Amino acid sequence: MNEPSTYEPMLIVMKPSATAREVGAVVEIIEAIGFRAHPMPGATRTAIGITGNKGPIDGRRFENLPGVAEVIRVTKPYKLVTRDLRPDKTIVRAGDAAIGGEELAIIAGPCAIENRDQALAVARIVQQSGARFFRGCVWKARTSPYTFQGLGDEGWEILTEIREAFGLKIVTEALDEAGVDLVEQHGDVIQIGARNMQNYSLLKCAGRSRLPVLLKRGMAATLEEWLLAAEYIMAEGNYNVVLCERGVRTFAQHTRNTLDLASVPAVRRLSHLPVLVDPSHGTGAAYMVTPMARASVAVGADGLMIEVHNQPDRALSDGAQALTPEQYLSLVAEAHAIRGVARSIINQSPSATPSPGLVTAA
Amino acid sequence: MNEPSTYEPMLIVMKPSATAREVGAVVEIIEAIGFRAHPMPGATRTAIGITGNKGPIDGRRFENLPGVAEVIRVTKPYKLVTRDLRPDKTIVRAGDAAIGGEELAIIAGPCAIENRDQALAVARIVQQSGARFFRGCVWKARTSPYTFQGLGDEGWEILTEIREAFGLKIVTEALDEAGVDLVEQHGDVIQIGARNMQNYSLLKCAGRSRLPVLLKRGMAATLEEWLLAAEYIMAEGNYNVVLCERGVRTFAQHTRNTLDLASVPAVRRLSHLPVLVDPSHGTGAAYMVTPMARASVAVGADGLMIEVHNQPDRALSDGAQALTPEQYLSLVAEAHAIRGVARSIINQSPSATPSPGLVTAA
Amino acid sequence: MNEPSTYEPMLIVMKPSATAREVGAVVEIIEAIGFRAHPMPGATRTAIGITGNKGPIDGRRFENLPGVAEVIRVTKPYKLVTRDLRPDKTIVRAGDAAIGGEELAIIAGPCAIENRDQALAVARIVQQSGARFFRGCVWKARTSPYTFQGLGDEGWEILTEIREAFGLKIVTEALDEAGVDLVEQHGDVIQIGARNMQNYSLLKCAGRSRLPVLLKRGMAATLEEWLLAAEYIMAEGNYNVVLCERGVRTFAQHTRNTLDLASVPAVRRLSHLPVLVDPSHGTGAAYMVTPMARASVAVGADGLMIEVHNQPDRALSDGAQALTPEQYLSLVAEAHAIRGVARSIINQSPSATPSPGLVTAA
Amino acid sequence: MNEPSTYEPMLIVMKPSATAREVGAVVEIIEAIGFRAHPMPGATRTAIGITGNKGPIDGRRFENLPGVAEVIRVTKPYKLVTRDLRPDKTIVRAGDAAIGGEELAIIAGPCAIENRDQALAVARIVQQSGARFFRGCVWKARTSPYTFQGLGDEGWEILTEIREAFGLKIVTEALDEAGVDLVEQHGDVIQIGARNMQNYSLLKCAGRSRLPVLLKRGMAATLEEWLLAAEYIMAEGNYNVVLCERGVRTFAQHTRNTLDLASVPAVRRLSHLPVLVDPSHGTGAAYMVTPMARASVAVGADGLMIEVHNQPDRALSDGAQALTPEQYLSLVAEAHAIRGVARSIINQSPSATPSPGLVTAA
Repeated sequence: MNEPSTYEPMLIVMKPSATAREVGAVVEIIEAIGFRAHPMPGATRTAIGITGNKGPIDGRRFENLPGVAEVIRVTKPYKLVTRDLRPDKTIVRAGDAAIGGEELAIIAGPCAIENRDQALAVARIVQQSGARFFRGCVWKARTSPYTFQGLGDEGWEILTEIREAFGLKIVTEALDEAGVDLVEQHGDVIQIGARNMQNYSLLKCAGRSRLPVLLKRGMAATLEEWLLAAEYIMAEGNYNVVLCERGVRTFAQHTRNTLDLASVPAVRRLSHLPVLVDPSHGTGAAYMVTPMARASVAVGADGLMIEVHNQPDRALSDGAQALTPEQYLSLVAEAHAIRGVARSIINQSPSATPSPGLVTAA
Repeated sequence: MNEPSTYEPMLIVMKPSATAREVGAVVEIIEAIGFRAHPMPGATRTAIGITGNKGPIDGRRFENLPGVAEVIRVTKPYKLVTRDLRPDKTIVRAGDAAIGGEELAIIAGPCAIENRDQALAVARIVQQSGARFFRGCVWKARTSPYTFQGLGDEGWEILTEIREAFGLKIVTEALDEAGVDLVEQHGDVIQIGARNMQNYSLLKCAGRSRLPVLLKRGMAATLEEWLLAAEYIMAEGNYNVVLCERGVRTFAQHTRNTLDLASVPAVRRLSHLPVLVDPSHGTGAAYMVTPMARASVAVGADGLMIEVHNQPDRALSDGAQALTPEQYLSLVAEAHAIRGVARSIINQSPSATPSPGLVTAA
Repeated sequence: MNEPSTYEPMLIVMKPSATAREVGAVVEIIEAIGFRAHPMPGATRTAIGITGNKGPIDGRRFENLPGVAEVIRVTKPYKLVTRDLRPDKTIVRAGDAAIGGEELAIIAGPCAIENRDQALAVARIVQQSGARFFRGCVWKARTSPYTFQGLGDEGWEILTEIREAFGLKIVTEALDEAGVDLVEQHGDVIQIGARNMQNYSLLKCAGRSRLPVLLKRGMAATLEEWLLAAEYIMAEGNYNVVLCERGVRTFAQHTRNTLDLASVPAVRRLSHLPVLVDPSHGTGAAYMVTPMARASVAVGADGLMIEVHNQPDRALSDGAQALTPEQYLSLVAEAHAIRGVARSIINQSPSATPSPGLVTAA
Repeated sequence: MNEPSTYEPMLIVMKPSATAREVGAVVEIIEAIGFRAHPMPGATRTAIGITGNKGPIDGRRFENLPGVAEVIRVTKPYKLVTRDLRPDKTIVRAGDAAIGGEELAIIAGPCAIENRDQALAVARIVQQSGARFFRGCVWKARTSPYTFQGLGDEGWEILTEIREAFGLKIVTEALDEAGVDLVEQHGDVIQIGARNMQNYSLLKCAGRSRLPVLLKRGMAATLEEWLLAAEYIMAEGNYNVVLCERGVRTFAQHTRNTLDLASVPAVRRLSHLPVLVDPSHGTGAAYMVTPMARASVAVGADGLMIEVHNQPDRALSDGAQALTPEQYLSLVAEAHAIRGVARSIINQSPSATPSPGLVTAA
């Protein structure tokens, strides 16, 4: 693969008081380490552009040199995730189901697999809604060590039964290397949770798997860090990565997280990877899930991840954000209706450039 | 008006090590200042509920008493903004135009009035789109004192001309008391900007006006603070307040602000006031405005505030986020299409409880 | 005054796919508007430096041009606040008292003037501590319209009495133009509160005053915005500005605000203005005020702003963060001790370059 | 160990419009699941306290019941980290070196072990400063997969040599289970990085180790989440946990992270665990490290973690924040001087209650 250099250019801004000697010294260092320096004298200060670098460079190393006011790193250090490399959108496939194509992908299920009856009751609803993916954690990453941590082995058996009985693809979280192995045996999509978005050992391990990886955005992750986490997976050879926005942490208190829907067009502009939205974790409140799901589809997401429970008020985890079966089925209908109008807008004016976010796959 | 007490209950949690004497002392203080104390002994610690308070009370005053672990203020200190008081949604009217009713309200125009040609060219597009409101600042609140600050008196004449020639309602920002007077003379809706959301002198002044007030959310405002700012205006007797979500400040760098669309269902649940979304300032990037406008309508906003410029690349302020006339007209069409499907969802299943956020006016 | 251009340089990064024609078009536009373009062809993409601009320019206007990937604004648009212009530190004087000089400045008093007895009792403690400034708000910017808003006229009389009886300089907040007039009549330092940091009408008004201005950092203000707010005041001719860090809003919940002490060395590096810290509002909890005051002095602040109350558990506002007289006197002693050791470090090794933050006035 | 129940009390606030039947239904459910309900009728609404729970309960499950306005979870779900359980401060020992005792603990070294010469040159400086701990990562958690990831096996040999030659205790990061094993073989303290603070597999693994664990605060972690991560380690039987504040992510851009020094007194109030501060990662800029280190000691931290490099401008990672040897030695001197004055304050007035944060070990 012909990798474009993504590490140039860079800009060093000298102080107004910087002497010619200091400017010269910076130029010298730049060239000594194999780059090209472009001094730009201005009315009151000089800036020095850097190009031609073939490898990674940490621009902050110049920050402490005499006369330097600021160092501006310009381009983003990712390669495989970018549309520069691959203009067509990626469609990630799990058997006969796909994420990133024409069809809106819906992943639904309970937060955690609690027991066989609960899981099968929910799976039946998910199948009935037309969704192709079933979510459900066999273990749960819980903030406290004393809360319900998941069902373990019995959970895997239940997931296997659901997969066979309902034809749903299983999306479930791996917390470590052993977890990746288990998902490979029993599931269809490896989920990397928000808390593990920068667990590089786990990312590399998922990168060596043959299964698609659903990568949730970390709760304090910039767009760049999120894409670089995807890059970690892809750098190991697994190109089937699906991004999932699930809200970021802010000062706001009316939601558990602040769902950053602008990340959908932002990802679309930079990357060929499909992107989903999880309005359940992204809000933490059942009454907001459906409106935010509509918004997610309207903004151009490739799909939704939704928590549904047959008895939300008895859920062992995250009950406050789980929808009832009725609410969930209504959400799916609304989501498809919004998706339809979004697509018809494009088709009605084929000559016009469609606004960003509505185009999914070529 | 029969005002519900909104200051109760409150809860004081004692430390596990608190003595009976310490519990007694807290109870005594609560009763001494006119409230009722409800001690609740638990397995390992005691909590004390407080009810019956008729006036405001700052619970943090109990925090430093011996034996107290934590003080929990429970309810929100607003009254006039709440649906508790007024279950029906408020429709705010400016002449024959309305915000909060059946019709999606669209407020559009340039960031700043730059000159007569620009303003009239944009107004023509806005009228053509079917929007009823024209926005345009005569002066601009700019972060730097050295950037374009607006046109001043000439701007008011231009706005007056637009109002008469195109029948558009004028929405423009007031920065101080003198500004409120000018909007009263020349405009239809007083805008309070995000930077002034907690400028209480200005809020009170707008509360004494007869014009509707569009109150933008401050960039670090919680939902409670935003509603309390509206309460300031309403407490002066002006009940025609429209809220406008315009993004909050977070660590994210792919947008100028993080547009918090979950604030729309959150406002709807608590308040009868209409709520708009400004995806232009809320993202700061033209390519995101249309997708986020679709999402805003889908989530249930009562309207949109959009920046459009006849020549965005020559705009004197905020050019990067202004749409071209073509982009703007396409946005309006898409917004109406989304609004339509959202409403038809409800009408198709009249028996079902509609999901929150789609119901606008009764 | 010979103002340095602070608007250059700027950098435009072209996409790897940008054509020579697109690069040429950008260069042409840059030169057409009077700047100098410096194209820098790189291995895979071209960047274009901009210098020579004499006036303000909003770089984001280039963002939508064909072939442009990103626009990097490099330098900060402030002038009067910078050390580039005035390397020596500013000492702000109020009569015979100073902020920014050798002596640690201490501003102390209650949050609000509640009544004569309270105010005089606290003033006595403040005088006893050796502090030169008394704080106390005659009106209070309160989040809710229903909480105690201050004492009004009677408050001004009390402040005047304190000023005469104790020789303390009065620091009190102005909320609007009328407030600035009142502080000019009765006080010594105009405080601009965090909520009004971007109330430009008020900033300009304070800029026309002859009194020093204490400018609190807004709760979501970047360093640049804070300095630009100071620039607004200074651009009107009032150079006696004191900055005051009081914490920013973050997700953290163990404090009311997150006190950002790194802003002290950051301000020092860029600006000649003195900077204080307010650990009372910056934490919101009495038990943290003294440790954070010590830290503030150790990091190099020019002074402290402290809330003290004769009876914190009966305070009408912010009682939870007010210190008792004993706690306050102990804080002052600790602050002076830390200040002493910080200075002695420097004096013991006069040849060594002192670490940033410890040097106060030349 | 007799564990206090930390899950009570809880408070359910009913809406003003809630009927007696709805209140009754909530009380019934509370009692049906084994808790005690305390209804508190108020002037306008009823609240219901819950006590007596023996196990964990997710209060949010009540949020969707008819008539419920809000559910307030009151107490924090940690047990082993709290001072309730263990009032005396923990002193964590690594051989003859200690963290949390009388002496200020200093952990210093390069960000990453780059080669033998660099590592030994730095170790010599660290030893010379009197510090007892050497930090240095054998592998690095880097945001990008294409930047320097560390030295691997050769790094372990270098660390072993430093440990023997200089008598320094080795603090180094483990990224996964295999990493924990390697630190157990070659090091003295297992560091868990900020990105892995909620990597529960790793926390449990460290909890099964016999080595002390230095747990960095996650960049978006609340105080509660950070303490619960420590609880995860302790719940596995390893009580030797040291907390390390390293800054949180905010909107501020003058530092890489916002160092939240108020977390030091906040931890001290709740927990018996020692707490360090890392001003190098916490600011990301060399010129701020020394002032923020002084502040960290002044606020009452038990120690510092500092990056020092023999040639910061050639460092392969994080060079911008590394101190030169001279700067580092000066920092250590200043830190000890501040520590001294902080302690002498206490000793001079033994009768007075010392202000929080200065008392370290009994």
